[in-house]
Amino acid sequence: MGGPEIERLIDLLAKLPGLGPRSARRATLALLRQPQVRLLPLASAMQQAARVVRSCALCGNLDSCDPCTICNDPGRDRSLICVVEGVGDLWALERAGVHRGLYHVLGGTLSPLGGVGPEDLNLSPLLARIEGGETREVILALGATVEGATTAHWLNERLAASRIAVSRVGQGVPMGGALDVLDDGTLAAALTARRPA
Amino acid sequence: MGGPEIERLIDLLAKLPGLGPRSARRATLALLRQPQVRLLPLASAMQQAARVVRSCALCGNLDSCDPCTICNDPGRDRSLICVVEGVGDLWALERAGVHRGLYHVLGGTLSPLGGVGPEDLNLSPLLARIEGGETREVILALGATVEGATTAHWLNERLAASRIAVSRVGQGVPMGGALDVLDDGTLAAALTARRPA
Repeated sequence: MGGPEIERLIDLLAKLPGLGPRSARRATLALLRQPQVRLLPLASAMQQAARVVRSCALCGNLDSCDPCTICNDPGRDRSLICVVEGVGDLWALERAGVHRGLYHVLGGTLSPLGGVGPEDLNLSPLLARIEGGETREVILALGATVEGATTAHWLNERLAASRIAVSRVGQGVPMGGALDVLDDGTLAAALTARRPA
Repeated sequence: MGGPEIERLIDLLAKLPGLGPRSARRATLALLRQPQVRLLPLASAMQQAARVVRSCALCGNLDSCDPCTICNDPGRDRSLICVVEGVGDLWALERAGVHRGLYHVLGGTLSPLGGVGPEDLNLSPLLARIEGGETREVILALGATVEGATTAHWLNERLAASRIAVSRVGQGVPMGGALDVLDDGTLAAALTARRPA
């Protein structure tokens, strides 16, 4: 329609999660309409990010410094490690501002059927980190999926012999959620996790 | 969360049409996870597009050559000009493969209330193009909105004195569409545009 450069830009944008061919075309048009204000700044932000962003050698977080801002923060409780599947989960917890300890990003979950074993994840560094020192509690903030439960089980077994407390995030009714729209699994989990009112 | 570079990338992506903060974060993570395979190629495709893509001096289409591929195509019917509001409309018609003539992109619609006058649009070049020569018919493929109708009316008046046929795209029930979900305006237009069965 407008030469290979436009086609290539649409194709690459359409591969991003949340975008399809239709929204990729809209985004491409919006960018091409203001090349100096939108297209070039975005291109340069991408190159800048590609140059400086690294996985934190300690926790697996993505950051432009290594160790990452969180691992470097002296105000964080270093005895508390929250284990998450991905950096997106870490971001969600940080936005909520509900965890004052450190993190450990696994980079996925164990999936025997999917062929993901312990050696494919950032698990050994977690065990080494815990053995290394000051950890008092490990919070498993993994998804409420079969794979999340499998991973939590594996970690729980590995840490059973240590003196470290291992906890899992609670399951139940989301804040603001109505009961009649929840699935059976969530309702069962909510009943099991009942507490004195 | 991960330094200013990541924040900036999320902010710029979130400004694209169809994306919000949430999908921009997902897209950023997907890009950062594979910097060599996804992030850098997209950045370079953007810079390449910014360098080569121009507005066609004849019709206003976006293309890496000027005049654009369509204006340059000897197989196109040069006596037929389809007038559209934006390049996105041109793309839609080209995907459908339903127009074999040339195009003219106005870059918007007349909007007296919104302060968009004839001089703000690519209208004079269209009139010059038509006066210049071989045009036999002008098809107004403008949106079925107040602004689209205003623009069509303005063009129709300007071209009334010439010997050029001016037509508007048909309005009515979309292909595959059920009548009971259509709005009153579309139903009225469909009745008015009725034809012998």
